[in-house]
Amino acid sequence: MTVDSVTGATMTAEAGATRPPADGPDFDRIHDALLGSWKDVRLAARARTLDPALHRRDDLLVADHRARVTAQLQVLLDSGAVRLPFPEAFGGTGDAGGNLVAFEELVTADPSLQIKAGVQWGLFAAAILHLGTRYHHDHFLADAVELRTFGGFAMTETGHGSDVASIATTATYDPATQEFVIDTPFRAAWKDYIGNAAVDARAAVVFAQLVTKGERQGVHAFFVPIRDEAGAFLPGVGGEDDGPKSGLNGVDNGRLHFTGVRVPRANLLDRYGSVAPDGTYSSPIPSQGRRFFTMLGTLVQGRVSLAGASNTGAKIALQIALTYAEQRRQFAGAAGDEEVLLDYPRHQRRLLPRLAAVCAATFTQDELLLAFHRVFTGEHDTDESRQELENFAAAAKAEATWNALDTIQECREAAGGAGFLAENRFGQLHADLDVYATFEGDNTVLLQLVGKRLLTDYGKRLKAAGGAGAARIVAGQALGAAAASAGLTALAQRVADGGTAAGAARSLRDPATQERLLQERVEVAVAEIAPALRPGPGVSAADLAARFGEHQHALIEAARAEARLRQWRAFTRAVERETDAPTRALLALVRDVFALQVIERDLGWYLVRGLLSRSRGRAVTRLLDALVARMRPHALPLVEAFGYEQGHLRAAIASGAEAARQAEARAAR
Amino acid sequence: MTVDSVTGATMTAEAGATRPPADGPDFDRIHDALLGSWKDVRLAARARTLDPALHRRDDLLVADHRARVTAQLQVLLDSGAVRLPFPEAFGGTGDAGGNLVAFEELVTADPSLQIKAGVQWGLFAAAILHLGTRYHHDHFLADAVELRTFGGFAMTETGHGSDVASIATTATYDPATQEFVIDTPFRAAWKDYIGNAAVDARAAVVFAQLVTKGERQGVHAFFVPIRDEAGAFLPGVGGEDDGPKSGLNGVDNGRLHFTGVRVPRANLLDRYGSVAPDGTYSSPIPSQGRRFFTMLGTLVQGRVSLAGASNTGAKIALQIALTYAEQRRQFAGAAGDEEVLLDYPRHQRRLLPRLAAVCAATFTQDELLLAFHRVFTGEHDTDESRQELENFAAAAKAEATWNALDTIQECREAAGGAGFLAENRFGQLHADLDVYATFEGDNTVLLQLVGKRLLTDYGKRLKAAGGAGAARIVAGQALGAAAASAGLTALAQRVADGGTAAGAARSLRDPATQERLLQERVEVAVAEIAPALRPGPGVSAADLAARFGEHQHALIEAARAEARLRQWRAFTRAVERETDAPTRALLALVRDVFALQVIERDLGWYLVRGLLSRSRGRAVTRLLDALVARMRPHALPLVEAFGYEQGHLRAAIASGAEAARQAEARAAR
Repeated sequence: MTVDSVTGATMTAEAGATRPPADGPDFDRIHDALLGSWKDVRLAARARTLDPALHRRDDLLVADHRARVTAQLQVLLDSGAVRLPFPEAFGGTGDAGGNLVAFEELVTADPSLQIKAGVQWGLFAAAILHLGTRYHHDHFLADAVELRTFGGFAMTETGHGSDVASIATTATYDPATQEFVIDTPFRAAWKDYIGNAAVDARAAVVFAQLVTKGERQGVHAFFVPIRDEAGAFLPGVGGEDDGPKSGLNGVDNGRLHFTGVRVPRANLLDRYGSVAPDGTYSSPIPSQGRRFFTMLGTLVQGRVSLAGASNTGAKIALQIALTYAEQRRQFAGAAGDEEVLLDYPRHQRRLLPRLAAVCAATFTQDELLLAFHRVFTGEHDTDESRQELENFAAAAKAEATWNALDTIQECREAAGGAGFLAENRFGQLHADLDVYATFEGDNTVLLQLVGKRLLTDYGKRLKAAGGAGAARIVAGQALGAAAASAGLTALAQRVADGGTAAGAARSLRDPATQERLLQERVEVAVAEIAPALRPGPGVSAADLAARFGEHQHALIEAARAEARLRQWRAFTRAVERETDAPTRALLALVRDVFALQVIERDLGWYLVRGLLSRSRGRAVTRLLDALVARMRPHALPLVEAFGYEQGHLRAAIASGAEAARQAEARAAR
Repeated sequence: MTVDSVTGATMTAEAGATRPPADGPDFDRIHDALLGSWKDVRLAARARTLDPALHRRDDLLVADHRARVTAQLQVLLDSGAVRLPFPEAFGGTGDAGGNLVAFEELVTADPSLQIKAGVQWGLFAAAILHLGTRYHHDHFLADAVELRTFGGFAMTETGHGSDVASIATTATYDPATQEFVIDTPFRAAWKDYIGNAAVDARAAVVFAQLVTKGERQGVHAFFVPIRDEAGAFLPGVGGEDDGPKSGLNGVDNGRLHFTGVRVPRANLLDRYGSVAPDGTYSSPIPSQGRRFFTMLGTLVQGRVSLAGASNTGAKIALQIALTYAEQRRQFAGAAGDEEVLLDYPRHQRRLLPRLAAVCAATFTQDELLLAFHRVFTGEHDTDESRQELENFAAAAKAEATWNALDTIQECREAAGGAGFLAENRFGQLHADLDVYATFEGDNTVLLQLVGKRLLTDYGKRLKAAGGAGAARIVAGQALGAAAASAGLTALAQRVADGGTAAGAARSLRDPATQERLLQERVEVAVAEIAPALRPGPGVSAADLAARFGEHQHALIEAARAEARLRQWRAFTRAVERETDAPTRALLALVRDVFALQVIERDLGWYLVRGLLSRSRGRAVTRLLDALVARMRPHALPLVEAFGYEQGHLRAAIASGAEAARQAEARAAR
């Protein structure tokens, strides 16, 4: 189903004209499953990104690339799509999930465009919408949405990126003039890496410590004009260009500083906290900490969309690399003919588990989008659902962004020298998506949050079980650990496997076995860490911090395992939804490849704990090899089922040129 | 020992003015050890790369970057250094090893400069020197060395990169005119990715299938003029620009094609094969295969220098990231103060094992350079020493180039958003060094060669042992495997460890234990693979090829293990050479961190085979955590002992600016 916008072959495929053999997997069904819950929105977004005006050009200087992307925003606005998440009064339908789907797809045109659009609509305008109230919507939102005001989201400072609660910019209320006075008191307090800030921004949503009546009320957001119409900084405002970056050079990131900059009292985005004319502070959320995290909660949409965008990048890279691997030949085989790269088992091992991982991430992303949609449309917006969403997004974002970088890099190398040419896109995709691993929440910090949540949940379970119950849980774990340690788990596995390699393989393909292993990877790790972190008599805060440090690495690894467990479950639900038997069998095979690579990566962890028997452990690698070989004939149709067209790939080695060269060379022999 | 060319602090450090406390490690000694056998050449090369005229600029279009690098070659030539590897008549001293040392260091200025210099002097001129004879030295070499003739090394074709023996360009001898006629018969036969070919090259060493008297004699090299002085292609020659690349855009890579291009008979570089006026072919090496590999042998210097250059890139990245990690603070700790990034155990885990790995690669590189020097100066140039050198270079190049990419990426992420700015260099270093993993021998192909050599050596050992001896070796292995499998090895380990975690840790720090484990990783893997690949009655070539495929992944992993074993041994020899006890202790600690990360990576492999007991396996991760914590206070002095100056780092976050910002912010509180 490689489809081309020119021939309209998408339509053909959609209509099922390219039916597979009746007994084989139906790739149209897989295509639908991979497109997910917003299929039409997604396809419409992809159709838009076929417009060459939106595509990245390879040899522009930074200033020209920036100007090009700025102009592209207008094209997006003209399409109307970017208005959709906003309220009806602003041209929208409130389709929170669909909006992110459309953003994800911008990566195929130019990741800079995705991020620039994200800055303008997803951060700047969205902050006005979500953190502001009626006044701000009336006065600032339409200009932001309609690109009459370009704006920055000025949260991060040079000195504080991950720990935003500690930013040093202040907004001090002056009741005499009913204004806030914004200051960045030292160099580390300058706002930094702010998209739009170097050139385009005329205003910014500035995050600052609100001070009124001599008291700090924590971080709040303010609408602050920063430049005049001609682009000159307003009095008291200054800044610097962040200059060229490793990627995303279509986005003009910059630094901003403020010295006694005054904005009217009304410019405080006051949904979660307001200041009366006399300076009295009030908030619907009494706890400063909770208030802060509620405000930060609006950032979750950035994380959700970055996870999806990373998947998009990985899919493009895989389709380019696998198309080439199916056409490219090198070294004569036993029969004398040169072998197709993808027939080399090592090449399969390099690309196919990554294809399986991207399928897993895709099914996970759809569930994440649905969860996001339910919260942000108010359909199911509770404290608990928000916390669960934030936790899910943190795990998914870390996993998807790292996975994309790893996948794109492997694809690049698998294409050899051709993979290094700009015309084949890998390098630029990697360079652009690189920062996705650390912005909108550094992956390590996000995973630490996920890990802490795992610890909290574990503590809650113990507490809910009560004294005796908790003792039973701990004893049960101790018993399980002792049994595993004594080899009883391994013994049970040997018995279950009938002592044979085939039996071990059968067990490992059983979803129940897979789920138990993936779950144990999380739960046993948490149970190992938790006791050390329990406060007790004579345990100082410093002791606890030191112990936390000792277990930080293990906790973060447990959080990654949690992210993968979620992926496995999402994939398995997708398998279970599939009703066509051969199609379901293929999806199950790919899910198994995903599961086994995850288990193989942590093989040592399982074995030292006796959670895998040696024979079953040995079967993991063998089985993975065998399943990858079984997946190989389906690799190209599978990657094509993502549904991207030549106009999205735009890679010389995926254009069919290699097949033509091979045919010409073979004919000449 | 962060040293600055302006203050001359290098000299101070060299003179030992900054003596460490008497009981601590002596970092001047470590500095010397890391600089290796060509210390003076290396320092002189580094002094040259401080020249801003040689530095990469961040915002140049491809054409301007190319022009800048072309001009930089003249600066290098003026320094005289690039003449050193050539014979005396060409201004050289024949210092083969020192020449590569100087090349390695060019990476600090701009990897494009390293590669462009490598193309001109290391490939084009070196091919004339090594593949040509007196006539070619007299007629072509001086112009190549003195940059009067820019040239390409036209070996790779669009259709054949890794399998160069199958290139399709032909050079057909015409006795009537005593000329060779060069042809690229179809598109896949075009020369591709050829450095200098897009713009600068006026000539090329073209590799082609030599045909004379209607017979193919295999691949040979020809000196072929391709452009006139004004830069227009000569008749019959054409080409294309490879266009922008993911990195190395200072090098003008291009494609070349030839249609009936005639060159005089004398233009065959005929050291390894010549054609008489009547077309009679002769060669000092009768076997076509061996002749080809002998010619290719001259490529080994490219691999050696890429390994070293990758280490240089990784060192720069680590010094930038570790300097920042020592100054940057984020999140308040238990005491209220914000914590230094490098005090986070996870941050240590991310950076310090990589620092240990780069130390290992550095000591390995020095041994590789010495081996290269002995062969290429003729000091010890035998078939066997050449084969060993090629094998060593293949393993070291694969390991060093991948390690550099992994290290630079981790450093980039560890520096967060700041790491994404061009001013901090990580992204460009990664983009430039990316292709080092696949050019001058694709790492996967190189490792497969190393793996095949392991199999051959194993077969030879069996054969040398004779029938009964071979049976004993195999039986011994079977016994060892059975003992391991039955848990006897593990039991023996438990006994040796006294059943305690401390005992296990002690064993794992024992170099003999480390070496045995690393060696078993190679030898057991090879012994597992070898039997399946033994030809026998009823085993067809196709069967063998299929079986080879089944074991390809395992063989390549065994080859990586071999590369790491070599690194471990080189590191251990460096430890043993050190006579100052505290310095030696620190080197041993870093070596242990290297060893344990290698073992941890393959933990599952060891455990399923019973080569590690569960308790010792569990001790691996704990011990690695503990050793990394012990290494932490030495991290900065250690990375500074690589000896690079601010003029090499040229990164804003390594300039001390972060420390100044932190001090200002803390003073303001």
